[in-house]
Amino acid sequence: MANLCKKYVIVVCVLINLAMLCLADVKPENLKPSIDVKEEQNVSKHHKTDSLTILMLLALLLLTILTIWFFKYRRFRFVHETGLSMIYGLIVGAIIRYAGPLGKKPDYAKAALINGTFYANSPPETLFLSLPNFNDTTNETIKYNLIGKVYSTEPDGLLERTVTFDPELFFNVMLPIIIFEAGYSMKRRHFFKNLGAIMSYAFIGTTISCFAVGGIMFGLTRLMSIDFSLNDCFFFGAIISATDPVTILAIFNDLNVDVDLYALVFGESVLNDAVAIVLSGSVEKYGELSAGSFDSKAFFGALGNFAAIFTGAFAMGSLMGCITALITKFTKIRDFPLLETALFFLMSYSTFQAAEAASFTGIVAVLFCGITQAHYTYNNLSLESKQRTKQLFELANFLAENFVFLYIGVSVFTFEALKWHAGFIFTAILGIIVGRFLNVYPVSFLLNLGRSNKIKFNFQHMMMFSGLRGAIAFALAIRNTSSDSRQYMVSATVIIVLSTVICCGGLTTPMLQWLQIRVGVDEELDTIQTAENTRSVSQTTETENNGTKKYEKAWLVLKWYNFDTRYMKPLLTNSRPTLMETLPQCCLPLAKLLTTEEQMSQGTTKEREDSESDTDMILDHSQLSMGDSMETNGAMPSSINSINADRKSNIPYEEHPGGDLGLGHAAPVSVRVNIQGGPGHKL
Amino acid sequence: MANLCKKYVIVVCVLINLAMLCLADVKPENLKPSIDVKEEQNVSKHHKTDSLTILMLLALLLLTILTIWFFKYRRFRFVHETGLSMIYGLIVGAIIRYAGPLGKKPDYAKAALINGTFYANSPPETLFLSLPNFNDTTNETIKYNLIGKVYSTEPDGLLERTVTFDPELFFNVMLPIIIFEAGYSMKRRHFFKNLGAIMSYAFIGTTISCFAVGGIMFGLTRLMSIDFSLNDCFFFGAIISATDPVTILAIFNDLNVDVDLYALVFGESVLNDAVAIVLSGSVEKYGELSAGSFDSKAFFGALGNFAAIFTGAFAMGSLMGCITALITKFTKIRDFPLLETALFFLMSYSTFQAAEAASFTGIVAVLFCGITQAHYTYNNLSLESKQRTKQLFELANFLAENFVFLYIGVSVFTFEALKWHAGFIFTAILGIIVGRFLNVYPVSFLLNLGRSNKIKFNFQHMMMFSGLRGAIAFALAIRNTSSDSRQYMVSATVIIVLSTVICCGGLTTPMLQWLQIRVGVDEELDTIQTAENTRSVSQTTETENNGTKKYEKAWLVLKWYNFDTRYMKPLLTNSRPTLMETLPQCCLPLAKLLTTEEQMSQGTTKEREDSESDTDMILDHSQLSMGDSMETNGAMPSSINSINADRKSNIPYEEHPGGDLGLGHAAPVSVRVNIQGGPGHKL
Repeated sequence: MANLCKKYVIVVCVLINLAMLCLADVKPENLKPSIDVKEEQNVSKHHKTDSLTILMLLALLLLTILTIWFFKYRRFRFVHETGLSMIYGLIVGAIIRYAGPLGKKPDYAKAALINGTFYANSPPETLFLSLPNFNDTTNETIKYNLIGKVYSTEPDGLLERTVTFDPELFFNVMLPIIIFEAGYSMKRRHFFKNLGAIMSYAFIGTTISCFAVGGIMFGLTRLMSIDFSLNDCFFFGAIISATDPVTILAIFNDLNVDVDLYALVFGESVLNDAVAIVLSGSVEKYGELSAGSFDSKAFFGALGNFAAIFTGAFAMGSLMGCITALITKFTKIRDFPLLETALFFLMSYSTFQAAEAASFTGIVAVLFCGITQAHYTYNNLSLESKQRTKQLFELANFLAENFVFLYIGVSVFTFEALKWHAGFIFTAILGIIVGRFLNVYPVSFLLNLGRSNKIKFNFQHMMMFSGLRGAIAFALAIRNTSSDSRQYMVSATVIIVLSTVICCGGLTTPMLQWLQIRVGVDEELDTIQTAENTRSVSQTTETENNGTKKYEKAWLVLKWYNFDTRYMKPLLTNSRPTLMETLPQCCLPLAKLLTTEEQMSQGTTKEREDSESDTDMILDHSQLSMGDSMETNGAMPSSINSINADRKSNIPYEEHPGGDLGLGHAAPVSVRVNIQGGPGHKL
Repeated sequence: MANLCKKYVIVVCVLINLAMLCLADVKPENLKPSIDVKEEQNVSKHHKTDSLTILMLLALLLLTILTIWFFKYRRFRFVHETGLSMIYGLIVGAIIRYAGPLGKKPDYAKAALINGTFYANSPPETLFLSLPNFNDTTNETIKYNLIGKVYSTEPDGLLERTVTFDPELFFNVMLPIIIFEAGYSMKRRHFFKNLGAIMSYAFIGTTISCFAVGGIMFGLTRLMSIDFSLNDCFFFGAIISATDPVTILAIFNDLNVDVDLYALVFGESVLNDAVAIVLSGSVEKYGELSAGSFDSKAFFGALGNFAAIFTGAFAMGSLMGCITALITKFTKIRDFPLLETALFFLMSYSTFQAAEAASFTGIVAVLFCGITQAHYTYNNLSLESKQRTKQLFELANFLAENFVFLYIGVSVFTFEALKWHAGFIFTAILGIIVGRFLNVYPVSFLLNLGRSNKIKFNFQHMMMFSGLRGAIAFALAIRNTSSDSRQYMVSATVIIVLSTVICCGGLTTPMLQWLQIRVGVDEELDTIQTAENTRSVSQTTETENNGTKKYEKAWLVLKWYNFDTRYMKPLLTNSRPTLMETLPQCCLPLAKLLTTEEQMSQGTTKEREDSESDTDMILDHSQLSMGDSMETNGAMPSSINSINADRKSNIPYEEHPGGDLGLGHAAPVSVRVNIQGGPGHKL
């Protein structure tokens, strides 16, 4: 033993010089936050640094790809792509090394060693152990990194140690893939038709659910011996309000369920993930600002935070999508599908990391990026890239989803930061049922006041039923497990996810039958069939379905649609009309600059390969007119032909349909449909 | 300050109870190995545990996919795939938690805290810091993980800290992708034609190169003030002998260079990566067994190790490929291309992890897995999966390659474990030039003794020139940087990689011109054209090229080819002939069992979509006969037709061509070609 001691005297020496720094920095505020908050800040700081790093590497890869393309395009062969990558790497490495601001040392190791005892004002991120070397007199220094707070000093088991993954793996790899795929493969037509309702459910409904769950939790946890603050309650309400689209939608897809119900459930759960993420962040923010009691300043601070993060992420996601569209439009990278796909992939992933680095929510950004990519960029891609990106994201999404659910299952037993409390779990389950109830029915009631195509009760019941909780709720819960209350949340979330996915997921098909919801609907066929039924003004049982088939556009949505067709699509894609046709005469030089030759040639061939995707946001005129015809009882014999006509011509229409934002302001007014396009349009 | 001290007295308390365990375990042997070896063992133990974990998760995912398929196939809808994943996860989580051997605690934290001083016999993997809590009297425990030996106690810069990646990222993610893609997209026909030569270069040549570099390094480092043991020298020789296929082959591909040269360079660099990896492992093994001086027992031990690891990896890779082929053949998973692709992907990645977990070399395994997948499984895939797997791996390979080279560039400046020594670097560069020289020219000379299609001098020069070093050499070098000598190796490797990739890569095109090597060769066209030239027995300049176009098969290769066509392909793929046709009559029941309906129907349609890939290993009879005809001067007017004929019919031929194993045993003998197949074959 003595021999051992002599040979291996290890002294913990944590950067005494940096301790000086620490002393200069110690202010009362620094002492105040508990370790939880500190740890949260650490995590978020780490996260931001990681994002910056990944972003830098992605930017480098993007630069390399663009340069490779340029070299191939110009037929330069003096340096190969791998050489290029390496040269870029060298340059950036040198910058990191020698540039002041990037290479500066962070003051994160604040500790001092005094008389063999170790002092610090917070756990240092890095510990250095000094170990005497055998061979010579020098010491070897061993580095340790901070892992986090633990609740047992026993080392983990051999497998347990590695099976318990870093939650960041979800947030940085799995979730972006799942959410991007949701945006990219979205059936945009029906989504935009029901946008008002979807946004009501997502924003208003989720907030209601969050507060309902939070209130119930707060009320009932008072009766238990659990320390659970009001803020914790609302945080739990926020994270558990994120419904999961995966399971239900897969079944809906298999069964070809009614497209409206599909759009409502899909749209709600996708947007509501984003809302829940931002909401939970805002609740945390509120908790930091307020001191436990209600504080109106903190409340509005949190509200402002919510709005800023959501719009920031939305703007960033859309912007990155547009940039990709511009790159794919104005470079001839489509001649090299591999490079194009790589560019597409990297740009999309950069969006996520850029948003994270900018403290917006990456997942919201990546969702809107996916939508933008599908709406604009997809049209510019080469046929091979279109296929490849679709297939790639489909596969990645499939693997990520299965991995996430597999992991949720494994973690029930291996995740060490779980605190079980039956009362808490039952309260949580009660909470989500009540929350879901208060989300779906009142919001549907309000929506139906303004909608001419009512959301029927069987749809409402199905929406109530499809409030599964999945990956997002789980990931939000395990992201931070430093306090006891958080650990109660994790265990409750795990149980809720397990039970809803297994029970509700398994019962979806019987439920659809029981609620007599139409399945086996072919989307394209359905549209035409419904129009036909309307034309004959039949009074069969089919009319009931027709009722739900009437869509209205809100004024804002219509304005956007016109702007999109006249300016955005001509600018960002290779589709007709060009900007030269839509911009006023005075901007012709600019318009010429922004119109590619390809775009000019594009217009001549009316039947393009991508005409299908182009029409996704175009209003179904027949359906609008159909809704109209039911009220005016005027027959519209050309409605089916008009669908087919504008599918092919892609000519935008000026329309003034009645509509609502889903909140019941306007009653339907008469619709004027110009089958051959308004004169103000086609210059 | 005093306040600080009072509040944040942090005591390093490393598991005193486990210190007892440590005392029980301390034997003289445990004390002996230096930290380097200890760290190496740690790394390899970690690596194996990681592999096991990943393997377990992959196996779960595979199981999920197969179950999903089965449920879809049987039209079960009571549980969804996400629910399934979760249930499997639960089961495995429970096993991990409660099963004895898996959940056992490893004894890795051996340390004691005695009178405020910290004692250990090796740096513990986990440190626990106890930190008094604000709110209550309990202590909070903060966990630290061992990172490794460092050479500066300054914390890393903000970006530096994260830019320096874990080398395991290469070995677990990037390299498997790159190598698998090499095997999967390999032009197998020309590879197998030149197999003898390729294997000679890869096995004999690389070993020569390793010893040459090692010898030179040993000789010249004696003249410097560097501590560099004989073992270090040979280790360096091994890692630096891995040539990189990426850069040169991309250029060869662009320029459509002579197919034989392509096959030689490609084949050599792919196999030689595998050889270098196993060789470096064997040198390390030898170093552990011997005590510095030459030890014949250790030498043969290392040799045995080399053989065992290589054959083990080969067997495992091929086996996993065959299993995938069997699954895709006997299940109808091809009806669900997404599941099929996921299965394919997971099986291939499992191969890597399985080999790593079994202490074989994952990269060798994944190479042969790729070849097997392309040779058998590919034929069973649905058309969509064929496309998707190809495109997926192409993209992944592209991104991985560029990432790796980018990272090599960045690491020059940011990797902290680099020791620069100009003399060492120059010696290393001299070493690789000499090593390459001794590899290419003597081996080529020996090969030419036995080959009728000589490897010309301009090919030899080009091979000498294309000895670029790339990702593998770099990855092998940075895998362990715990000692000074290893750090010299890393810096020398980085410089060699940089200079060869940038210089040689950039000069490839001029070099090809200078050496007058044919470019712009269309492989298919070339074959036919050459045959035509032969038919007319023209004496133009083209005849010189014809010389290199004669291929011979070694006896062993031919035997394998026959076995493959008669038993392996019928067993593993859906191609004709079936086992019912090739197996002896007595095995008919077994053969029936192993023949799918699809396979039976397959045979009737002669022109299948995958006939092209099927013929990849089939001998070019026209070329064999062509070589023959040049000696016998007998005209073979049907030779071109015969190519086309057997392309379509896929009927195997019994042949007894003269050949060599690349080592000059047999002279060409006459070839008998049965255009309609031997009678012994087609039952």
